[in-house]
Amino acid sequence: MRDVVIGMSDGLTVPFALAAGLSGAIASSTIIVTAGMAEIAAGSIAMGLGGYLAAKSDAEHFASELKREEQEIVEKPAAEKREIEELFSGYGLSPAESAPVVQALASRPEQWRDFMMKFELGLERPDPRRSLRSALTIAGSYMAGGFVPLGPYILMGNATRALQVSVLVTLLALLVFGYVKGRFTGAKPLRSAVQTAAIGSIAAAAAFGIARLIS
Amino acid sequence: MRDVVIGMSDGLTVPFALAAGLSGAIASSTIIVTAGMAEIAAGSIAMGLGGYLAAKSDAEHFASELKREEQEIVEKPAAEKREIEELFSGYGLSPAESAPVVQALASRPEQWRDFMMKFELGLERPDPRRSLRSALTIAGSYMAGGFVPLGPYILMGNATRALQVSVLVTLLALLVFGYVKGRFTGAKPLRSAVQTAAIGSIAAAAAFGIARLIS
Repeated sequence: MRDVVIGMSDGLTVPFALAAGLSGAIASSTIIVTAGMAEIAAGSIAMGLGGYLAAKSDAEHFASELKREEQEIVEKPAAEKREIEELFSGYGLSPAESAPVVQALASRPEQWRDFMMKFELGLERPDPRRSLRSALTIAGSYMAGGFVPLGPYILMGNATRALQVSVLVTLLALLVFGYVKGRFTGAKPLRSAVQTAAIGSIAAAAAFGIARLIS
Repeated sequence: MRDVVIGMSDGLTVPFALAAGLSGAIASSTIIVTAGMAEIAAGSIAMGLGGYLAAKSDAEHFASELKREEQEIVEKPAAEKREIEELFSGYGLSPAESAPVVQALASRPEQWRDFMMKFELGLERPDPRRSLRSALTIAGSYMAGGFVPLGPYILMGNATRALQVSVLVTLLALLVFGYVKGRFTGAKPLRSAVQTAAIGSIAAAAAFGIARLIS
């Protein structure tokens, strides 16, 4: 779900703004569709592949930190015990109060390592299958989002008419998407709907203005 | 630094791929520059503003969870104590072993709340000034990145010649950026350089192919 939000959020916004911007400078739908499709291809690959490699490198980072933590527990257990103590002293606990937990963890090397990974380093074990699924979801959502604003230009030859339909359809899609996103992320749905539509509108207006200025 | 990576990564890749893609279909640099500038405006606003609002909503989520945790500590302390116990039992600790920490936290409501926020919910207190700075950094890095591939089209009238220079300059920039990114994120710098350049190349090739196909 988080990946759908990431992909669709940019997929609805950027191709929409690009197409709207070009409509301010170019009358031919064909060029706008070409640019829009090229953008959807570029954006979905950049986001999907970028996300995939980032997830891969997170997994490697986790594995190397896990190894380091395992070593430290074996090689300098005293320093590692002090780290648990310090962790708890940050919450006002005296060494005497945290001592039982320190001792209990020290007698269980595997759980000790997992505890340090999560509570000292803040690292969660990444799901190995997640990176590929996540990449495909982001790329797919970007494409699905991108075809909403581009659809009218594909169907209509006149860029100005297509722009009007595209603005209507995309604003509606942004409002619905923002509302649903708000419900899922626990934000206020109505405000999320308005904010999402506002980002799209501002991006499109800026692109339109800049394209007008140049051409 | 993380925000520079986020912004520049997409800023170098997407406008590069879009411009390269359009070069496969359009001979005029002016239209490519118009599309590229519109994309840079759209992308930097979507990413910057999107990041700003996401940070804002994270901060609100944190505040509302903080309030809920405070209430739960006052209203159902027994259940909250059991939650600490369960947290530790996940690391193999018996209730007797975690009891001293449970008691110590229970006598310090503020630290108890902070402990639950971090260790139960995994939430860090967001820096209130970070969201604006982060948004501006992302947007600025996106623009800075975007002008690298677009520069040759701005300076040269012939799109085919500009494409050649743009590919060279941007591949070099992607390699350098990927290398530096790798050094900062702790990944292998050379591999990061190659991967970053590969994402850009694949995105550009796909955009080029699609633009050719359509026009």
